[in-house]
Amino acid sequence: MNTNREVLKEFVRPHLTEERFRHTIRVTDTAHQLSGRFGGDSDKIEEAGMLHDYAKFRPKEEMARWISGSVELPKDLLDYSPVLWHGPVAVKMLEKEWGPLQPEVRTAIASHTTGKAHMSLYDKIIFLADYIEPARAFPGVEEVREIAEESLDRACLAALTNTIGFLMKKKQTVYPDTFHAYNELQRKQEEHYG
Amino acid sequence: MNTNREVLKEFVRPHLTEERFRHTIRVTDTAHQLSGRFGGDSDKIEEAGMLHDYAKFRPKEEMARWISGSVELPKDLLDYSPVLWHGPVAVKMLEKEWGPLQPEVRTAIASHTTGKAHMSLYDKIIFLADYIEPARAFPGVEEVREIAEESLDRACLAALTNTIGFLMKKKQTVYPDTFHAYNELQRKQEEHYG
Repeated sequence: MNTNREVLKEFVRPHLTEERFRHTIRVTDTAHQLSGRFGGDSDKIEEAGMLHDYAKFRPKEEMARWISGSVELPKDLLDYSPVLWHGPVAVKMLEKEWGPLQPEVRTAIASHTTGKAHMSLYDKIIFLADYIEPARAFPGVEEVREIAEESLDRACLAALTNTIGFLMKKKQTVYPDTFHAYNELQRKQEEHYG
Repeated sequence: MNTNREVLKEFVRPHLTEERFRHTIRVTDTAHQLSGRFGGDSDKIEEAGMLHDYAKFRPKEEMARWISGSVELPKDLLDYSPVLWHGPVAVKMLEKEWGPLQPEVRTAIASHTTGKAHMSLYDKIIFLADYIEPARAFPGVEEVREIAEESLDRACLAALTNTIGFLMKKKQTVYPDTFHAYNELQRKQEEHYG
């Protein structure tokens, strides 16, 4: 039995719906698989996976107060969909309600909703695991899963491309960090193959 | 006879291929149609339309030198496709080789390749005319032409959406101003209909 997981489970469970709790387990398991393929410390993966959706069900007003009141969190989040807020806000809440987070865990949780340019290994693993965990059924997810067998960067790029396309189709704004993540990984591919 | 057009024609013709010269005339005529629908001064439309592709066939190295050497032009252009450079660079070249440009003409030429947030009426008209002029046959252009019968903002938004989707499909980077233009017009629609 993984003691760390049991502790994390009991900590996050009261903050999530049953369905979101199961999603959290699936993301963490998927992140471990990706980590086995691409590297990373399994304790950090475990913690980032289990905690990534911690703030998912907090009231919009509470999340907005965290964003407004923080020197660190970008204020322009408030101009974009509240669906994006729970990643960045979670790290502030967790530091108060859970304890200090290791830097890799912290940024992986903070960036999982939007992506960003220059994602770390951990950022990419959590971002991608959240996108491809086995219950996800977005259009195109199967192709992303296949790419994830080979390349973490290319799989993140495919997930970002799908996400931007999906948001545009739904006539929604796209948070700038998502575009920057796309551009950075796209450019990296060009340099690789160009 | 439109004297102004004759002067502009003789000025730009030597800098363009025959096909690009005909495109320039079509863009200018389309811009006048849009201006009849949505407003704007016809002399400014004429000048912006006729001059918008002035720098199109300048060598990449020459354009890069203009970008590097200008305080005004954003240096990050150099990190993106050279196809985008001729808009911003044209205003600097024109000020040297043609004469002072009126502010509305200037920004319409500069932003026609990428779009940008908070485009002016003239910026939007030239950007859109360049996208929908009668010889254009992009996928989705017919729908943009139809929207342009009714709304300049919604037509620009549709053109930007198509452009971003097209670039992602071609696995190319997207210049940030294009995303900012998309987000701004998308948000404006949400406020309008939300």
